[in-house]
Amino acid sequence: MNKNNLKKIVKSIFLKHGLNNNHSEISSNYIIKAELVGASAHGLARLRMYCDRIKKKLINSKPKIKIKKISQSISHIDANNAIGFVAGDIGIKKAIYNAKKTGIGLVAVKNSGHYGLSSFYADQAVKKNLMVFCFTNAPPAIAPYGSKKKLFGTNPICFGTPTGTKIPFILDTSVSMINRGKIRVAARKGNKIPSAVALDKFGKPTNDAKKALEGVQLPIAGFRGSGLAWMVDILSGVFTGGNHAGKVKDPFDDFSGPQNIGHLFIVMKSNLFVGSSYNKRIKENIKIIKKLPKIKGVKEILFPGQSKYKKYKSNLKKNILIPKNILEDLKKLNSR
Amino acid sequence: MNKNNLKKIVKSIFLKHGLNNNHSEISSNYIIKAELVGASAHGLARLRMYCDRIKKKLINSKPKIKIKKISQSISHIDANNAIGFVAGDIGIKKAIYNAKKTGIGLVAVKNSGHYGLSSFYADQAVKKNLMVFCFTNAPPAIAPYGSKKKLFGTNPICFGTPTGTKIPFILDTSVSMINRGKIRVAARKGNKIPSAVALDKFGKPTNDAKKALEGVQLPIAGFRGSGLAWMVDILSGVFTGGNHAGKVKDPFDDFSGPQNIGHLFIVMKSNLFVGSSYNKRIKENIKIIKKLPKIKGVKEILFPGQSKYKKYKSNLKKNILIPKNILEDLKKLNSR
Repeated sequence: MNKNNLKKIVKSIFLKHGLNNNHSEISSNYIIKAELVGASAHGLARLRMYCDRIKKKLINSKPKIKIKKISQSISHIDANNAIGFVAGDIGIKKAIYNAKKTGIGLVAVKNSGHYGLSSFYADQAVKKNLMVFCFTNAPPAIAPYGSKKKLFGTNPICFGTPTGTKIPFILDTSVSMINRGKIRVAARKGNKIPSAVALDKFGKPTNDAKKALEGVQLPIAGFRGSGLAWMVDILSGVFTGGNHAGKVKDPFDDFSGPQNIGHLFIVMKSNLFVGSSYNKRIKENIKIIKKLPKIKGVKEILFPGQSKYKKYKSNLKKNILIPKNILEDLKKLNSR
Repeated sequence: MNKNNLKKIVKSIFLKHGLNNNHSEISSNYIIKAELVGASAHGLARLRMYCDRIKKKLINSKPKIKIKKISQSISHIDANNAIGFVAGDIGIKKAIYNAKKTGIGLVAVKNSGHYGLSSFYADQAVKKNLMVFCFTNAPPAIAPYGSKKKLFGTNPICFGTPTGTKIPFILDTSVSMINRGKIRVAARKGNKIPSAVALDKFGKPTNDAKKALEGVQLPIAGFRGSGLAWMVDILSGVFTGGNHAGKVKDPFDDFSGPQNIGHLFIVMKSNLFVGSSYNKRIKENIKIIKKLPKIKGVKEILFPGQSKYKKYKSNLKKNILIPKNILEDLKKLNSR
């Protein structure tokens, strides 16, 4: 389907479910963007879930979002369980505003929900020539090192910087061996997942996607990845006032309450210490690394975010392919 | 040897090599602390290297360290190639000062050198009830994903937070499958290193420590670890004005110039968003995770930094064991 038509449909679905025009616009933009960067697990596949949660008032369609100014650099946002896209969007824009004013912006968001890809928010800061960290926690998926029970979310670490070119450097990596969204898509499609990335609910290795969803994902690099996941839980949950320690509810399976997810944005002017030479420096950095001798079969050393950008640019010219079951969802949701 | 006597000897060695009393005191304290936490690769094993670099004026024994105030939160330090311990010490103390004043402190250090363990600096912030990130780059050790040549340092990610108890939560993880210091110690002792953590100079897997030192260390989790190493290189080098993109010299092997390493410290008041309940929240977080069902053979789920703290406490009461070759170094250096 043409992306503009698709966006209209998604927006109309959100409007019908009671979001206001602005929130529907923001949310549908992020969902279409997920499809365009090839992250379909964060795109249309989640639309029904969002609508179900709005209907059950677990996502607040009329949130009273409070922005508390702590200093010119620091703000605290209570998102009142607005849809995560809106909470994240307000959060990153405030962090960008603070950073432009003072050199650094620190914004904590609490009482939010799943906000899609962290890179969407990082991208906005990078476009304004800023460096950025985005942290968010997520429902239990990863077992802490030494435990056989999942507790940490896939808890992405996201970092972005301008590159002196149009293509942003955006690292957006979960600390799980595999993205939960990818397991979910594999389970839907009946595909296998790779070995050594997940355990079933009995603690045994599995490459059955459905069994992995019931079980546990493994952190990257054992205690190192487990420590990074713990760090992200503290930054996004303990620090912000959001849920933490495994209390973030799975949006697909748990309708017993709102998610109360937390996000943390740290934005910094890239020219703080080296002035206008920053772009020259980062360009040189990337150039040197790209020129390194490559291992067999590798054509180009890519920086984080580069392949996603390419995919996005090329998908912009194409129609978005929609699986049958999702197309049915769209129809049903639009006629609710 | 008794740690107080050992410290006197190390301090006297630095004094004899021309560091002033304050810099000798700071540097000897950090070196003894490395021995006490069991990180001998960052301890006495580096003393001869530091002294050689001081003699060759690659570490500046009379640095004119400039601290530039960018705002009440942000400072830029030109360490003038002071010994890394001193540059790092001034940097973290300034970041702590700024954070206490404004809620957040951001300090970039350039023209520094190897500063030991990042956790030493994080520890100081945590003791003041602050959260902290420490980033530093390091000489080439890790091959970027897709390349067969080393370029990134082991580039640690270090994050600390108070826990509401005496034991700080300090994650201090390199993004390499193995610490370079550990390979160096194994090479000295003639020990093997584990498989699948390093390649020799021809790009072949090896568990010979000496061959691994000439070759390449592998990043954790492929492109994820490679991206994290790249992020740390940008934050510590490109952003601060320090060396980057593989230009940080190996302090042991390359005497062609100073290291010009960069460090970045981000310090935040832990009570910014949740007030005095922060300590209660983090205590609860840790308690919940510690209570999870454990895998076979695991007695306790440890948070990052916990086992290092235990080791430190127990080593405080013991003498420090010094290998023969290091003991000879000490004698020679003290009689120079």
